[in-house]
Amino acid sequence: MSFSPLIRQLIDALRGLPGVGPKTAQRMALHLLERDREVARHLARALEAAMDGVGYCSRCRTLSETEICNLCADPRRDDSLLCILQSPADVWAVEQAGGFHGRYFVLKGNLSPIDGLGPEEIGIPALLACLEDRDVAEVILATNPTVEGEATAHYIANLLKPRGIKVSRIAHGVPLGGELEYIDGGTLAHALAGRTPIG
Amino acid sequence: MSFSPLIRQLIDALRGLPGVGPKTAQRMALHLLERDREVARHLARALEAAMDGVGYCSRCRTLSETEICNLCADPRRDDSLLCILQSPADVWAVEQAGGFHGRYFVLKGNLSPIDGLGPEEIGIPALLACLEDRDVAEVILATNPTVEGEATAHYIANLLKPRGIKVSRIAHGVPLGGELEYIDGGTLAHALAGRTPIG
Repeated sequence: MSFSPLIRQLIDALRGLPGVGPKTAQRMALHLLERDREVARHLARALEAAMDGVGYCSRCRTLSETEICNLCADPRRDDSLLCILQSPADVWAVEQAGGFHGRYFVLKGNLSPIDGLGPEEIGIPALLACLEDRDVAEVILATNPTVEGEATAHYIANLLKPRGIKVSRIAHGVPLGGELEYIDGGTLAHALAGRTPIG
Repeated sequence: MSFSPLIRQLIDALRGLPGVGPKTAQRMALHLLERDREVARHLARALEAAMDGVGYCSRCRTLSETEICNLCADPRRDDSLLCILQSPADVWAVEQAGGFHGRYFVLKGNLSPIDGLGPEEIGIPALLACLEDRDVAEVILATNPTVEGEATAHYIANLLKPRGIKVSRIAHGVPLGGELEYIDGGTLAHALAGRTPIG
């Protein structure tokens, strides 16, 4: 059967959401049309408002609807600590974990010459400019533990060390609550190599 | 951490979609903001257009953006067969299965006195009016095999039999490809009681 054009277009548009396949999109479209038209209109307005109003913080480059984001504007944060991440989602994750009170700087992805992503593209010049302006004592590299993330971390470490800035990398190992028998070999090898003294 | 208001509102609005929890909504919002702003704007327009443009077919009462839906307007369908279902989603399911070439009539749910749903509310008068207009030889009751669905089917069967219309109920039993050891007892008992001669 063919859906009528507006319903077909709605189903196709819902499939643009990450993780939504054809069956889920169909179920969503029907749910909205049959039960929740006000929810659908509200979602349409929220989408438009967010796409129009949300840009990037000119300082840390995370998503923000103001020129300077909440985190950069907060005077209680520690200016001497700068955590470097590869996406706004990672900023949210670190903030939700709590415990970090320094500043952030968000790269646009990782170095990946094959994809045409060099230092310029991911924002290294902006990072250096940001370090010029501030009195940063330690930079924490929190890029993902992938090949590209590691390469990016090493690249930045090599750039910053001659400038007398302490550079560290977040710890990688067995996650809390993880069971050794289910952890992949790479992580386990990393956890052993990175062991720390106890007691 | 607090998201900025527009991002917070977008996440909350996405949670209105069925099956979308807080983590998924957050992931969707970030994906749209970071990678797919055009997809988000397209979705907003599709939502508005569908909510404004899609109503109900005045004949079979399924979702339709025209006064009479495609199915009711199709002259090749068999007017003598009328399948009664309880939602537009069920019309789609039967059409996608193929093989049925009659007409449909969509009830607004099932009889459920506890929820204040009597014959008026689910559309029995409209069904009777629709039967007046047409020369229907057989009505197929395809409400769900729940307590309310069965009650609705029996109610309609009792209404129509005195009018000389043949009334049937879709078969309930073991689904194709189902394995008996995993089928619930109710279905299995129904399948045994409803056995048909073979050969």
